Amino acid sequence: VFTKFASSLAGPESTVRVSGDQMDWEAELVVVIGVGGRRIPTSTAWDHVAGLTVGQDLSDRTVQWWGPPAQFSLGKSFEGFAPVGPAVVTLDELSEDHNRDDLRIICAVQDAPDGEHRILQDGSTSSLIFPVPEIISRLSEIVELYPGDLIFSGTPAGVGMGLTPPQYLRAGQTLTTEIEGLGTIRQRLV
Amino acid sequence: VFTKFASSLAGPESTVRVSGDQMDWEAELVVVIGVGGRRIPTSTAWDHVAGLTVGQDLSDRTVQWWGPPAQFSLGKSFEGFAPVGPAVVTLDELSEDHNRDDLRIICAVQDAPDGEHRILQDGSTSSLIFPVPEIISRLSEIVELYPGDLIFSGTPAGVGMGLTPPQYLRAGQTLTTEIEGLGTIRQRLV
Repeated sequence: VFTKFASSLAGPESTVRVSGDQMDWEAELVVVIGVGGRRIPTSTAWDHVAGLTVGQDLSDRTVQWWGPPAQFSLGKSFEGFAPVGPAVVTLDELSEDHNRDDLRIICAVQDAPDGEHRILQDGSTSSLIFPVPEIISRLSEIVELYPGDLIFSGTPAGVGMGLTPPQYLRAGQTLTTEIEGLGTIRQRLV
Repeated sequence: VFTKFASSLAGPESTVRVSGDQMDWEAELVVVIGVGGRRIPTSTAWDHVAGLTVGQDLSDRTVQWWGPPAQFSLGKSFEGFAPVGPAVVTLDELSEDHNRDDLRIICAVQDAPDGEHRILQDGSTSSLIFPVPEIISRLSEIVELYPGDLIFSGTPAGVGMGLTPPQYLRAGQTLTTEIEGLGTIRQRLV
């Protein structure tokens, strides 16, 4: 569990400054808490969710590995490193056509404004090591959740630091993050 | 840099549930931000400070060492694990009789309500590895600071996990944390 400081939040269509030569992507399902609480059991965890949205958990891996101990929270909290949106989709709206536990999640990059979309990540939220109810339950064992809290979940395979050789984001690229039923967010890197 | 989630905040006189058998103390000077900003130079950092107060950075070392990676932010964020107070002392008020860069900081424990105070930590804020202006400057290079933000600084030698053998807090004890010119906070452990 790591923190993205509130000052890193940004909207769905945004411009982000590349923080260094190891800026990485992580497409993530974001849970928006509607009803707060402590010690929420998994069986009722979904009742605490106002809705779901798309998030991009940008990280500076250079800063992340400062330490020891590692500095994940700082590395994830540069300005604009937590873009979310384009809307909070409520569970009833989502469930009309989709399974909230199995949503396709895709991250792609364009190297130039009119370039092709290279797929970086293509997975499903059904592969989360900790499914949403488990995340809510485990977090709320220690931390009280409040209405409006945003919980970034996990990311599919394909982040840059795991590639051989590693790949990172560069100025001039455009990153898109899409989740089935929730929409797309788009970050222009400068 | 680690996070204490907002839900761990508590007042100066409080009761805290012992989270397990490795709950540790860290007496800390807490900086209250008055004027926010990004990329604040050390030379003007004090101008961003509304005042100073006393904090106790309680940690559950068992949870902290979950992982890898380590889970400092969770370990520090149980309910009541961030008691602060008893007042925000402004810099002009403090400087009448004290040096803001050299404040004595003492942590003590009573094993029983009427027992003697055993000193656990006795140091000075002049020994901080990162002095206050440096903390503000380095943090604000990455994270935007907001008015009302609380920054826990560093702690003097003498935390429980560093002792031979290690010592931890137990139910029935009372922990007091005092900083010269700022006052005392007192936590009853149950």
